[in-house]
Amino acid sequence: MLSQTEVDYARRRAAALLARANLAITPTELARIEVADFGLADLERTGLQLITYVNTDRYCAKELVLFPGQTCPEHRHPPVGGEPGKMETFRCRWGTVRLYVEGPSAVENTARPPAGSEAYYTVFRELVLSPGEQFTIPPDTLHWFQAGAEGAVVSEFSSTSRDELDVFTDPRIVRIPIVA
Amino acid sequence: MLSQTEVDYARRRAAALLARANLAITPTELARIEVADFGLADLERTGLQLITYVNTDRYCAKELVLFPGQTCPEHRHPPVGGEPGKMETFRCRWGTVRLYVEGPSAVENTARPPAGSEAYYTVFRELVLSPGEQFTIPPDTLHWFQAGAEGAVVSEFSSTSRDELDVFTDPRIVRIPIVA
Repeated sequence: MLSQTEVDYARRRAAALLARANLAITPTELARIEVADFGLADLERTGLQLITYVNTDRYCAKELVLFPGQTCPEHRHPPVGGEPGKMETFRCRWGTVRLYVEGPSAVENTARPPAGSEAYYTVFRELVLSPGEQFTIPPDTLHWFQAGAEGAVVSEFSSTSRDELDVFTDPRIVRIPIVA
Repeated sequence: MLSQTEVDYARRRAAALLARANLAITPTELARIEVADFGLADLERTGLQLITYVNTDRYCAKELVLFPGQTCPEHRHPPVGGEPGKMETFRCRWGTVRLYVEGPSAVENTARPPAGSEAYYTVFRELVLSPGEQFTIPPDTLHWFQAGAEGAVVSEFSSTSRDELDVFTDPRIVRIPIVA
């Protein structure tokens, strides 16, 4: 589990990237940025920072912030109570993000999962999103994503978010939101 | 109906405001900005410019652009086929927007509907949204909104959008998206 000092530092770095992206975020939102290390205690390489703007029983909107080279590990959103899994649209606002989803990979697969965790990355159809570019991930579809050298800020528009139900390929992962 | 010249001009002005808001929009999106005059042929005062990022059967995300002082006229989103009406969250990204919804108004009602159309504005609970501030409008709830002196850029996160079913208070209004 991340220490309070680590969470505070991650929040400050995320706030700095949101400022570079010129997104207006309230002080209250900045103070509550969710810092997810997925239980791996390796935030710098594997993790995600999030602000959830709204999450109702019908839709959800978040801002995702990734540090340079940081990876959100491979997962899918399974069906829930007769409803299809979460569908989500990623729209890059700043920086670059490489999104990997199920499907045919390029002839030369240039994906670079976090070293030591390669076994838990299995999908390699690559979509490189620059600012203004977006992609919609169908329900129950494996995906992972990684920021470029400057980091990334990505808007996520989706159906209802139920993070606790996400299924990760890496069995070591526990998706516990760290709300310090 | 707006002329092609009027639509082109409105798109350029909307693009300029999106640039001031520092939002990355692709050339294709800029070329397709929806310009809605609601059939009133008074775009400068009553109208809305929109980019729909995504609209699925589960959720929708748009960027709304308003010229200085421009008003999106009063309307509600009725239930559709057993589903509650559209629920939407407005998040101000740039400029200022005054949002009016059903509910008690302030002692001094300072709302300024477009002159000559006052009869068609009936709800006056005022929410002034500055960048980073947001408000969620329940389904089937009357609302209208007006940009401040600089204009406004507002992200809309919502359930599925079915603009053609919107119910406007002003019977002269026809919600025809002008896609030139």
